[in-house]
Amino acid sequence: MRKQLMKGNEAIVKSAILAGCRAFYGYPITPASEITEAAALYLPQVGGTFLQAESEVASINMLYGAASAGVRVMTSSSGPGISLMQEGISYMAGAELPCVIADIMRGGPGLGNIGGEQGDYHQVVKGGGHGNYHTIVLAPHSVQEMADLTALAFELADRYRTPVVLLADGFIGQMMEPVEFPQTATAPQLPEWAVAGTAESRGNLINSLFMDIDGLEEHERKLEAKFRIAEEHEARAEEWQTDDAEVVLVGYGIVARILKAVTAQARAEGIKVGVLRPITLYPFPNAQFQRVARRASVFAVVEMSNGQMVDDVRLALNGSRPVEFLGRMGGNVPSHKEVLALVRKLARSCQPAEEQMANV
Amino acid sequence: MRKQLMKGNEAIVKSAILAGCRAFYGYPITPASEITEAAALYLPQVGGTFLQAESEVASINMLYGAASAGVRVMTSSSGPGISLMQEGISYMAGAELPCVIADIMRGGPGLGNIGGEQGDYHQVVKGGGHGNYHTIVLAPHSVQEMADLTALAFELADRYRTPVVLLADGFIGQMMEPVEFPQTATAPQLPEWAVAGTAESRGNLINSLFMDIDGLEEHERKLEAKFRIAEEHEARAEEWQTDDAEVVLVGYGIVARILKAVTAQARAEGIKVGVLRPITLYPFPNAQFQRVARRASVFAVVEMSNGQMVDDVRLALNGSRPVEFLGRMGGNVPSHKEVLALVRKLARSCQPAEEQMANV
Amino acid sequence: MRKQLMKGNEAIVKSAILAGCRAFYGYPITPASEITEAAALYLPQVGGTFLQAESEVASINMLYGAASAGVRVMTSSSGPGISLMQEGISYMAGAELPCVIADIMRGGPGLGNIGGEQGDYHQVVKGGGHGNYHTIVLAPHSVQEMADLTALAFELADRYRTPVVLLADGFIGQMMEPVEFPQTATAPQLPEWAVAGTAESRGNLINSLFMDIDGLEEHERKLEAKFRIAEEHEARAEEWQTDDAEVVLVGYGIVARILKAVTAQARAEGIKVGVLRPITLYPFPNAQFQRVARRASVFAVVEMSNGQMVDDVRLALNGSRPVEFLGRMGGNVPSHKEVLALVRKLARSCQPAEEQMANV
Amino acid sequence: MRKQLMKGNEAIVKSAILAGCRAFYGYPITPASEITEAAALYLPQVGGTFLQAESEVASINMLYGAASAGVRVMTSSSGPGISLMQEGISYMAGAELPCVIADIMRGGPGLGNIGGEQGDYHQVVKGGGHGNYHTIVLAPHSVQEMADLTALAFELADRYRTPVVLLADGFIGQMMEPVEFPQTATAPQLPEWAVAGTAESRGNLINSLFMDIDGLEEHERKLEAKFRIAEEHEARAEEWQTDDAEVVLVGYGIVARILKAVTAQARAEGIKVGVLRPITLYPFPNAQFQRVARRASVFAVVEMSNGQMVDDVRLALNGSRPVEFLGRMGGNVPSHKEVLALVRKLARSCQPAEEQMANV
Repeated sequence: MRKQLMKGNEAIVKSAILAGCRAFYGYPITPASEITEAAALYLPQVGGTFLQAESEVASINMLYGAASAGVRVMTSSSGPGISLMQEGISYMAGAELPCVIADIMRGGPGLGNIGGEQGDYHQVVKGGGHGNYHTIVLAPHSVQEMADLTALAFELADRYRTPVVLLADGFIGQMMEPVEFPQTATAPQLPEWAVAGTAESRGNLINSLFMDIDGLEEHERKLEAKFRIAEEHEARAEEWQTDDAEVVLVGYGIVARILKAVTAQARAEGIKVGVLRPITLYPFPNAQFQRVARRASVFAVVEMSNGQMVDDVRLALNGSRPVEFLGRMGGNVPSHKEVLALVRKLARSCQPAEEQMANV
Repeated sequence: MRKQLMKGNEAIVKSAILAGCRAFYGYPITPASEITEAAALYLPQVGGTFLQAESEVASINMLYGAASAGVRVMTSSSGPGISLMQEGISYMAGAELPCVIADIMRGGPGLGNIGGEQGDYHQVVKGGGHGNYHTIVLAPHSVQEMADLTALAFELADRYRTPVVLLADGFIGQMMEPVEFPQTATAPQLPEWAVAGTAESRGNLINSLFMDIDGLEEHERKLEAKFRIAEEHEARAEEWQTDDAEVVLVGYGIVARILKAVTAQARAEGIKVGVLRPITLYPFPNAQFQRVARRASVFAVVEMSNGQMVDDVRLALNGSRPVEFLGRMGGNVPSHKEVLALVRKLARSCQPAEEQMANV
Repeated sequence: MRKQLMKGNEAIVKSAILAGCRAFYGYPITPASEITEAAALYLPQVGGTFLQAESEVASINMLYGAASAGVRVMTSSSGPGISLMQEGISYMAGAELPCVIADIMRGGPGLGNIGGEQGDYHQVVKGGGHGNYHTIVLAPHSVQEMADLTALAFELADRYRTPVVLLADGFIGQMMEPVEFPQTATAPQLPEWAVAGTAESRGNLINSLFMDIDGLEEHERKLEAKFRIAEEHEARAEEWQTDDAEVVLVGYGIVARILKAVTAQARAEGIKVGVLRPITLYPFPNAQFQRVARRASVFAVVEMSNGQMVDDVRLALNGSRPVEFLGRMGGNVPSHKEVLALVRKLARSCQPAEEQMANV
Repeated sequence: MRKQLMKGNEAIVKSAILAGCRAFYGYPITPASEITEAAALYLPQVGGTFLQAESEVASINMLYGAASAGVRVMTSSSGPGISLMQEGISYMAGAELPCVIADIMRGGPGLGNIGGEQGDYHQVVKGGGHGNYHTIVLAPHSVQEMADLTALAFELADRYRTPVVLLADGFIGQMMEPVEFPQTATAPQLPEWAVAGTAESRGNLINSLFMDIDGLEEHERKLEAKFRIAEEHEARAEEWQTDDAEVVLVGYGIVARILKAVTAQARAEGIKVGVLRPITLYPFPNAQFQRVARRASVFAVVEMSNGQMVDDVRLALNGSRPVEFLGRMGGNVPSHKEVLALVRKLARSCQPAEEQMANV
């Protein structure tokens, strides 16, 4: 298949349909609107359903319904709309319903602006909804990954019976790049647990209500257990020149692309620097961080936020290495220059004492 | 003033009115319903407004309006309703609007059950809404504190112009204890920034929209800065026999009361154990944890959750001390017996090597 | 095609699909729930869309969207839900959008009960929404007519670009009778005015906003004009033994069946009685009333209401004949006995003076 | 009290407060917005509650709540919002709850425009909601009447335990005239049937659900009976030079003012013309129409609609006199000239044959 040039937002929808997605409920919001637009165009072409709902509260509850009936279903929004979905996400997680939610992050709390930011990390990764639950979170950093991770999202959603969130900043959503799709499509299949309106599925029950105390505790332990399995099998990160890296730059989404560019230049200056890019934000790739940390001297987390993922890096390293943070906000992207300056500063600080002397 | 015997939920409302609260918008939900009920009864008696809204989405937006007009205002709910408020909370934080929100936690994600849990920690403390923001979070562990921290909540909300959340498990909301209120009431006052419908306040603007990239970044840095101040001045924790403690038990809400009871018994067995109870969950009392850690050997965090606050403890200690976790869920309260067993185990593990030898 | 035994509510849905309906948005309510249930079952089987909406306000606005895109679309409800749709119905009428709405009437204002009544006549026939508009209203009195008039409803909706309402009491919705469907189905077709998301239809505009005063007046006169045409061509009523009738019974829906039974018995007693059953309630069959009135002496309107259609009968006759009214409510059906008593009384009153003398 | 110059919309609110209204829930819409604005300003000044609700669906249900608690309560809107209230109005009528609703009519069905029209007559007077119910409807034609009829509306609402609608066109809402208010205010009083949250009122029940068939019929007959009493005691119309009128002009609201001006000029031409202005649209002043008809030859109904009230005039006269109709729409007001032309034409047509001959 030839590569097609398209926006990240559009790639999500095409990939979703190839992955067997047949229902989309949502409401447009910048910078995620192209997802809704593409879904409105393409879903009907494959006999699927597209519906622009009354609100994001309505959307997520329609996902609940469609997922219960065994349909691969997705929605998209940006921060404010994702906030409105938190009750429904908790319900779907509690009822073990698969679905895919794309959050194309805009700027600021409240209305903010339509620039790209990474300020929804806490909401999405820690769980902005109530109660003890998790969702799997995937963080694409290219249009190709918007496609690939969407396909993966549907697979993981079904495998773990859980909502999966694609978390991308507005830049990844809006940029255009060539993207290649799989040659074969996944045909929709009916999960055996679904309530499909058939005689066979009449005995099935989708539910997040467990009035009995011990019954609820057992249910929550079961939810936890599957995420412990996911942590072992699904945690992913990209390592970029980390083999000999003393300074490890950490970032996801558009930030990681800047980090790679800075790495090239810093390497040219003789600085041993690499990039560790989390692809799964939940489960967080703790093991990879710990492995890279054996060799590295210092980590620097760069985010377009007030410092959110940095806590997960600190938890992964648990004090074994110093962790620096550089954050930009409001739609400002960390500049090549400011990241490079940080790298140089850290490189100096992690030199062995004798080398530092020699520099004097 | 004589002490009055009442439920924690009722104490919140009486304290709010004494603190100058004159508007309450909400929707009842177990185990928070008595708050709505008491608000419906008492607010009109002081010329205030009570309104049962169409939904929690409506409630929080009514808070936005009332707070904009300079009225001290509050709402309450439990998990599902708090989830529905996440968009509005982010808006209020972004627009720097004070309000008080009581979350009386029930069990489970989704519908769960009506037992008490502590599963909303991530949602409330990390910020379940979108974008870069924080809210102050207070965690009462007695009916008296339900009253006292409500009063403090209104003070901090105004001082920092931010939503403040009271986070209590259903047990604290439902239990009855004697409570003493202040002798004097705070008269409602109009903040100078409010849009009060008067000629003087016509120039004021309440807003969370900052279309300019640098303008939004500046605004977000301003929000961050005030929470750095709050971290310095408002972080609170109760230390209970921690002076010589080797094993430090950590818990908030109803759990802390169990930890204190266990401490008494363990001390009788000669185990040097104490309790460190965070009162502010955000800002988290990092400094107190670090100070107590100088002496202590090991920390054990006990929660009625799948392990949420435990990460903040790990971040506070940053690997300097081992952190154990014991969690119960579904409305099950950690038992005296299981906590004591954990204390005994940890006490043995932190004994100096020679003592351990001697025990053999 | 063999006749199938089914409920009136189910017949509506099967007929709708044969008429090319491919989208259904609604919310179940007794005694209309089987329509939603059947739609959920059958629409997906023909590649159509069924969606249970958040509320009836949402449903009707989804109809607005689907109709704008040129899809044959329907919804159903009973009184309370139909009330919630009034804004949307006015919008659709104003924007000249075709759709079919089934109102299966329950009892009473407010919650009332789930018995059958005819109390929504004013709401549906006079227009419960705002502004100058009409909708065509069809009143089936058998399961076969539930099917036939549904097909007609879709035809008229398209021909006049207007919402069409099927108005049936709960008895017609719930009763089972054999019904025969057409052998051929109508394939969905795209109207040339639709906004279909295609390049060709990009210039089309669906709109009910006319800010210019003269422009709005012109638009409203255009709406009126098409209903004057509809009045001429589409007004329908069934005449049952009216040729020589002196007493004319008037009723629609389940009531008409009672009137026919009473007629048989009254004829056996020598009373010249007939039934005039409006099939279109809007446009009202004024011409047929005037024609029947040339011979008849008196009309008696029987409704399961407080007297709503009776005004349209009075307007049609304009004082030329006396009009009596018999109404039952709450789910009570006018009894054979009470209607027969009324017929006997009216027959006596309309006898010529000499005959009355002879009877003495 | 000196007269104050103000808009009709503002007069409604001042009069409402003097009539004891202490709660207002609504949402602004042109041309009714000044009502909401004035309510927001004045209600809090008398210790009352103003709340801008999430939607008109929310508003009307808040009226249901406040009225149940015995508070004199009102809302306002224009056509689209009034449509959204139809379910709630039916509920309040069914539950016999007093309230006052001001409908300041705008133009057209759907969005239409913000000009004044009289197109909501059917919706408001016939009952746009479901089931067998009525509301009292008052039609002011001056700013002074906006005040006076608001006061009357609260009285009638309480006396008949029913919603009362003030139906005014946008012109009456927007025009400014001097208005005089009563010297004394009505103090809020608690009706004995209210559910006031007190021990005494605990046994009271507000309800529109009557599952029993005979119980519901009895309830609906009770509702009907009180409107038969209202018809006898409350029906009102203004007669303007009707004593010797051969041509009777009929109009309400702003139209009536034009009719009076035309009457003056036509009288100067020697035409015996008068104006009959319904003040209560429900109950309709049938008796006054019949009395005036004894002398008059012809009636002409002038409306800013497609012809809605004209049917009630026809029903009142029942064919005894010819009824002409002149309608303008879209915000166009019937001109002096076109009404005068109609009067001249009708005057000619009702002259005795010999006079017509003499004119030749």
